[in-house]
Amino acid sequence: MQYRYPESLANLIKYLATLPGIGPKTAQRLAFHLLNESEENALGLARAIPEARAKVRRCLVCGNLTDGRLCAICEDIDRDRSVICVVEQTRDIFAMERSRSYNGLYHILHGTISPLEGRGPEQLNIAALMNRLREGGVKEVVMATNSTVEGEATALYLARLIKPLEIRVTRIAHGIPVGGDLEYADEATLAQALCGRKEL
Amino acid sequence: MQYRYPESLANLIKYLATLPGIGPKTAQRLAFHLLNESEENALGLARAIPEARAKVRRCLVCGNLTDGRLCAICEDIDRDRSVICVVEQTRDIFAMERSRSYNGLYHILHGTISPLEGRGPEQLNIAALMNRLREGGVKEVVMATNSTVEGEATALYLARLIKPLEIRVTRIAHGIPVGGDLEYADEATLAQALCGRKEL
Repeated sequence: MQYRYPESLANLIKYLATLPGIGPKTAQRLAFHLLNESEENALGLARAIPEARAKVRRCLVCGNLTDGRLCAICEDIDRDRSVICVVEQTRDIFAMERSRSYNGLYHILHGTISPLEGRGPEQLNIAALMNRLREGGVKEVVMATNSTVEGEATALYLARLIKPLEIRVTRIAHGIPVGGDLEYADEATLAQALCGRKEL
Repeated sequence: MQYRYPESLANLIKYLATLPGIGPKTAQRLAFHLLNESEENALGLARAIPEARAKVRRCLVCGNLTDGRLCAICEDIDRDRSVICVVEQTRDIFAMERSRSYNGLYHILHGTISPLEGRGPEQLNIAALMNRLREGGVKEVVMATNSTVEGEATALYLARLIKPLEIRVTRIAHGIPVGGDLEYADEATLAQALCGRKEL
């Protein structure tokens, strides 16, 4: 007879293993942890999942995640409403905010155009962006999609869509990361860094 | 103003980050996954946690995890009841069973003696082991605690405790892993492999 975990434990392991980056071994370790963990933390996690799913929705303006109607950034009156930064995912906003170099609004696409994966522009949060831009008041759109084939293609597609509205469209710079070694930079990054060189 | 995630999402991230090996970045990624995941998987996980905690308990004989009174191994009548293999953790049983080389019973200590971390023998599942042995019928106890300082110390401690009962106490062999390169073996393993060499 092949030895198996008790059913309720096997069940917990099975669900943990559906999480991204969690293989069967890690799922097992997490399950044991959740069995031995304090009541507060383990059941807190169990309660937090349905609660977050029920409460979190998309901001009606920018598509960012929020507990209310609008997200904290769209509601913030200190933000510069003449600039919109377009990102792929909600978590990209966090990265941008950590840089403390941007004070405009955001627009989240929730993905990229990817013909290979069957995602066209109509599946992205683009119509809402165009409506925002047509309402006027926006002077610049900063494309901060990732520096991947899909990210670049999406940025170019949007730029073509937006330019007829006579709004400035810019792309964040690509090059050697700050603190990065030339020696370890790949060719594509180095090529971009050379293309984007500035006068000293 | 520093940008923050909506409260219910931040809450979910906080609980996920309490899991072992899950840092803030991974917790964030898992939380987003749980938001976008199918209802069945996400809420299944939420339900599986309290269910496993409520149902899973320790086998009354060996300390293994079970949904019932006894674990599947203690209940299995095909098992050799004259040998008990002593392991540190429940998951060690899985490793042993995968080897398909053992058909006896188990005893789970739920830890090791570790004076540095303030764990003495009285915190381990040792009294139950001694009761099982005193009941008679057991001819051999195989020490399969880990090959760490604590694991070795615990094995030696138990061997001294068990020997007066005139039961054979053995220790699993340590040496070069099967398929392992001598070149990459550490000194301690190599020393153990030499000590334990056998006639060809």
